Amino acid sequence: MKAAIIGSTGYGGAELIRLIQNHPFLEVGSLISTSRAGPVDKIYPHLSHLSSELQELDLDLLCENNDMVFLATPPGVSSQWTPLIAERGKIVIDLSGDFRLYPETYQAWYDKEPAPITWLKKAVYGLSEWFGRQVKDAQIISNPGCYPTAILLALLPLLQAKVLDISSIIIDAKSGVTGAGRGLQQGLLFTEVNENLRPYKVDGHQHIPEIERFASQVAGDSIYINFVPHLVPMNRGILVTIYAKLVKDCSNQVLKEIYQTIYEAAPFIRLCEGRWPETKHVQGSNYCDIAWHLNKRTGQVILLSAIDNLMKGAAGQAVQNANLRMGWPEETGLTFSPLFP
Amino acid sequence: MKAAIIGSTGYGGAELIRLIQNHPFLEVGSLISTSRAGPVDKIYPHLSHLSSELQELDLDLLCENNDMVFLATPPGVSSQWTPLIAERGKIVIDLSGDFRLYPETYQAWYDKEPAPITWLKKAVYGLSEWFGRQVKDAQIISNPGCYPTAILLALLPLLQAKVLDISSIIIDAKSGVTGAGRGLQQGLLFTEVNENLRPYKVDGHQHIPEIERFASQVAGDSIYINFVPHLVPMNRGILVTIYAKLVKDCSNQVLKEIYQTIYEAAPFIRLCEGRWPETKHVQGSNYCDIAWHLNKRTGQVILLSAIDNLMKGAAGQAVQNANLRMGWPEETGLTFSPLFP
Amino acid sequence: MKAAIIGSTGYGGAELIRLIQNHPFLEVGSLISTSRAGPVDKIYPHLSHLSSELQELDLDLLCENNDMVFLATPPGVSSQWTPLIAERGKIVIDLSGDFRLYPETYQAWYDKEPAPITWLKKAVYGLSEWFGRQVKDAQIISNPGCYPTAILLALLPLLQAKVLDISSIIIDAKSGVTGAGRGLQQGLLFTEVNENLRPYKVDGHQHIPEIERFASQVAGDSIYINFVPHLVPMNRGILVTIYAKLVKDCSNQVLKEIYQTIYEAAPFIRLCEGRWPETKHVQGSNYCDIAWHLNKRTGQVILLSAIDNLMKGAAGQAVQNANLRMGWPEETGLTFSPLFP
Amino acid sequence: MKAAIIGSTGYGGAELIRLIQNHPFLEVGSLISTSRAGPVDKIYPHLSHLSSELQELDLDLLCENNDMVFLATPPGVSSQWTPLIAERGKIVIDLSGDFRLYPETYQAWYDKEPAPITWLKKAVYGLSEWFGRQVKDAQIISNPGCYPTAILLALLPLLQAKVLDISSIIIDAKSGVTGAGRGLQQGLLFTEVNENLRPYKVDGHQHIPEIERFASQVAGDSIYINFVPHLVPMNRGILVTIYAKLVKDCSNQVLKEIYQTIYEAAPFIRLCEGRWPETKHVQGSNYCDIAWHLNKRTGQVILLSAIDNLMKGAAGQAVQNANLRMGWPEETGLTFSPLFP
Repeated sequence: MKAAIIGSTGYGGAELIRLIQNHPFLEVGSLISTSRAGPVDKIYPHLSHLSSELQELDLDLLCENNDMVFLATPPGVSSQWTPLIAERGKIVIDLSGDFRLYPETYQAWYDKEPAPITWLKKAVYGLSEWFGRQVKDAQIISNPGCYPTAILLALLPLLQAKVLDISSIIIDAKSGVTGAGRGLQQGLLFTEVNENLRPYKVDGHQHIPEIERFASQVAGDSIYINFVPHLVPMNRGILVTIYAKLVKDCSNQVLKEIYQTIYEAAPFIRLCEGRWPETKHVQGSNYCDIAWHLNKRTGQVILLSAIDNLMKGAAGQAVQNANLRMGWPEETGLTFSPLFP
Repeated sequence: MKAAIIGSTGYGGAELIRLIQNHPFLEVGSLISTSRAGPVDKIYPHLSHLSSELQELDLDLLCENNDMVFLATPPGVSSQWTPLIAERGKIVIDLSGDFRLYPETYQAWYDKEPAPITWLKKAVYGLSEWFGRQVKDAQIISNPGCYPTAILLALLPLLQAKVLDISSIIIDAKSGVTGAGRGLQQGLLFTEVNENLRPYKVDGHQHIPEIERFASQVAGDSIYINFVPHLVPMNRGILVTIYAKLVKDCSNQVLKEIYQTIYEAAPFIRLCEGRWPETKHVQGSNYCDIAWHLNKRTGQVILLSAIDNLMKGAAGQAVQNANLRMGWPEETGLTFSPLFP
Repeated sequence: MKAAIIGSTGYGGAELIRLIQNHPFLEVGSLISTSRAGPVDKIYPHLSHLSSELQELDLDLLCENNDMVFLATPPGVSSQWTPLIAERGKIVIDLSGDFRLYPETYQAWYDKEPAPITWLKKAVYGLSEWFGRQVKDAQIISNPGCYPTAILLALLPLLQAKVLDISSIIIDAKSGVTGAGRGLQQGLLFTEVNENLRPYKVDGHQHIPEIERFASQVAGDSIYINFVPHLVPMNRGILVTIYAKLVKDCSNQVLKEIYQTIYEAAPFIRLCEGRWPETKHVQGSNYCDIAWHLNKRTGQVILLSAIDNLMKGAAGQAVQNANLRMGWPEETGLTFSPLFP
Repeated sequence: MKAAIIGSTGYGGAELIRLIQNHPFLEVGSLISTSRAGPVDKIYPHLSHLSSELQELDLDLLCENNDMVFLATPPGVSSQWTPLIAERGKIVIDLSGDFRLYPETYQAWYDKEPAPITWLKKAVYGLSEWFGRQVKDAQIISNPGCYPTAILLALLPLLQAKVLDISSIIIDAKSGVTGAGRGLQQGLLFTEVNENLRPYKVDGHQHIPEIERFASQVAGDSIYINFVPHLVPMNRGILVTIYAKLVKDCSNQVLKEIYQTIYEAAPFIRLCEGRWPETKHVQGSNYCDIAWHLNKRTGQVILLSAIDNLMKGAAGQAVQNANLRMGWPEETGLTFSPLFP
């Protein structure tokens, strides 16, 4: 089955190529770029054993030659192209933020024209472990953001179990630098990031409304979070540290049972006991490591969650969703272990 | 004036040598190590332009040849030696945790015999900007821990101004690897730390009681904090992100005035406007960069504070305290700019 | 087919687990460690989705339960065990240096008792691209060292073609830190390696006789090399820069034809044109990127070669050799692309 | 004495500000930038304790308000401005490459119009340890490049002593990323440099003619070198590994005496015995660590040399030259120890 990638020259696109090339049922179809042309290894020399050519976008050709389309594009692109591709009957998996929010919220946080409402309504939020059933029938799968994936996978079980004071949620997030993409900015030069820890978007990050939307949906109540992201001098990985008050007097055992029950059949969730999640433990893989800790002195619960932002936080989850959509085993093409160290 | 260093072979000791060697009124006296002998450049080749020899501890000789003694020793050492040195009339600046806590608290968190209570009572907590007046007359100066320094400098102004809900304080802390010292542990190998972000001591760090003690003292009320430290793949630097609820409806302007008033004459506090603190901006220097942000959506205030853990978090503040104690200008020998990048 | 790993707790062992677990025809059999016991994820939490237990070495049990044995052990171990395993009819792939040298040379450079000469003679040097035909029939495959792999793959074509002045070979080598293993040494702490570049073993590295042996064998003449290795602050990767004088007036085109002819059918050799090899381009993969440059001003040729030291320099080539030995396609289980970035 | 900096917004300029601010006899005068305006801490927040403003270039104003002018400008700028400043009687210290080469060589390697020949002839090459006597009377001091500094300091003693086969010199050089400046290039993004080792300009680096010119001058013969630079994932530091054949049968002791004699009174040269130079041992300082090794198996000598490229390789040596020029002690304002770790 042939899969096209639109936005092949970003890190998310390159990761998709890596995964699809190694997938037993998927095959790399068209690689589309609007900014670059020529052989893909001019842009990604690590792929010089492949012989693909970047192509310009021609919708008819694209839909003729591919069965499925992944979009790994900047904000405001997918909102325009996805409807045109979906109209032609192709499955779309969109890694951008264009189909994750209500139109007004999208416009407020992304400062772009939202996707048409009819198409927004058809999109399914592809947090695989929570909305996998809807993904099976979706024509447009809106792949979650990297931070929301790490955060929601840790938070939703306790929200669903209604054990948290939902007004008390603090999320301190840390990300490797690939999360910022491959664009040229002085603040992303090696010299400026290396040996540095930097908070950013302290006054508001576009993943906040996405987290709040799906947290609220599962909690059945409006949730507002505090969220501060930090840039860590490493390439891959997100670690989130979540603080919240318990409303019930939960034991550690009760929390454990909540997580175990919900994630019993989830092949990519690893509940940590006797260790805390670290980003290196999931590097290059689709796993999400989750741990919790009760602070008895303060009545707070601390949640920790680690993913590889390009994998479970982007391309890996996109392939997981492709598997779900096609009825293949969820972990097809994703069973390799993390690269360590 | 001659200054001895006990514990010369750790990173804190090496940083003291660097600072004292460059100080106009201080001179490196005895370099004491219990674990190593020989020329100091066998242990620290970067100091091979100096020609100092490590010596064993001989109290009489030490006090004969030096006017001031810095201790940069592991827990449980200073509690024994500091009284013996102070008895001989020398000024002691202790960089360890041995004189920072009440005896029971010390025993509970450090699992060591506390220092004698009579000597504990004589020790002054050397957070220079807050207890500088007491430092001027102290014979034993208990230099603060690295995390407590970064945290208290950001937190105390708002606690003193009584604008925070003191039950709501969450501290998410991130440190470079020098904070863990030079001891051999698998978890501190380059291969295990590099490209990794790791939370640690999630169930309790020994700096918690130190932070709570002095936060409570300034707030005039008992404060319990949530504190999770993280190990960041960089050598130097601490960044802390503090979350708390406001009890009063403070504007950003009010917060700014609180900080400006308190730190008006503090040469090492840089209040950030239009930027957030980053660890690289203070690397190798004694500065502490502080910023605050009001989150109007949630009624929380976010405080950010960055220091170099070996400088303002250890050796730099120790020299600052030596300056205060001797009546020299506070910034003597500490005026160099951060090393960037 | 079941494969055992002796020395499962080093980085080479962990990499073998990762590869075998993902290999269509191989299966992880016994994981042997002499130093540690218990579940493998206590030592390697990144493997916590597996449920293997470390076992002590019991030769009979080992040979009963496994068809093939990989040794990733320190010097002096395989020399003793390999004969006992081979005697029991099992295929051995030894990643240590114990079967790579003549006995006297081994003793001189490793300062250990060499393996028995009868067994040494049976071992085949597993530089797959050069000795693959012998590997097909070997019972003991001596997997090359990391530096020798990167160096010989670049050097042997020109030695075979007799275009180099063999007295002029200078090899400047640079390696990531995983090459030094997981043992505790102060010089391998993050704080000491990070932001540092360090030459080491300038007066002699144990890979020198291995390089000279096989370079001489292919050249048909005695070769002595200059070799200085350097430790680079990164986890994975070796880059070697080789300098030599040409004896014939070769054009760039002639050199290109030499390489293309020899490596025409080699799936893991990527000859670089229009770019130079970089370690990140092969990270996590079994590829070896090779380039050459004629310096017309000086009459020297410069060769560049990059591998992932744990992959093509250790576990990857070991699996490649297993494939060759079993008659499977050479690239079985090794076709994934490098992890980038 | 007031010193102006033209090109204040690059890393070299920022390092000059740091050094001059801490120099007892120099004071930061005008900070000139052609690309940026406003307070210097907008561009360099680590300098936010200073209150300097960037200014446009006005030659008359510049020469009125400053006694000495440092240029840290891109190629092709100093060649135009230095004559105009020198004409007005000011001392110029040029950190760019514009006054280091003969005009034809400059044009060939930099592809820019060379400086006027009359002014070129007046410029003194400021390799302090070798041409310090000429620097004392110079009006234009051409500060050496970073690679040439590290290389020439190690190589010149043996060239002067005529113990090397000058046709055999191979230089393998490795640099941290600050050497590439602060300009925006995809290849300098954190994500592309981190965990990577990259050779570059293998077919010719503009420092080659500079090295050859002064090596030839000291050797009294024409020298052609092989030179391959590599980009190392660290911010600061250059390490060069030089390979050459000996023409005489020198003992290690003879080499040692050559170095000791020449560098007896050089405060910033540290000859290493019992250790090899590492970049971290000189980080942030003006030291150059040098070592040599005789390879008896091959008759080659290996030289190792480490500097901080922004210090001894740029701003530090510039200040050293200012000291020499003014008759101040050579190490004035440069006596601080390296920052370690």
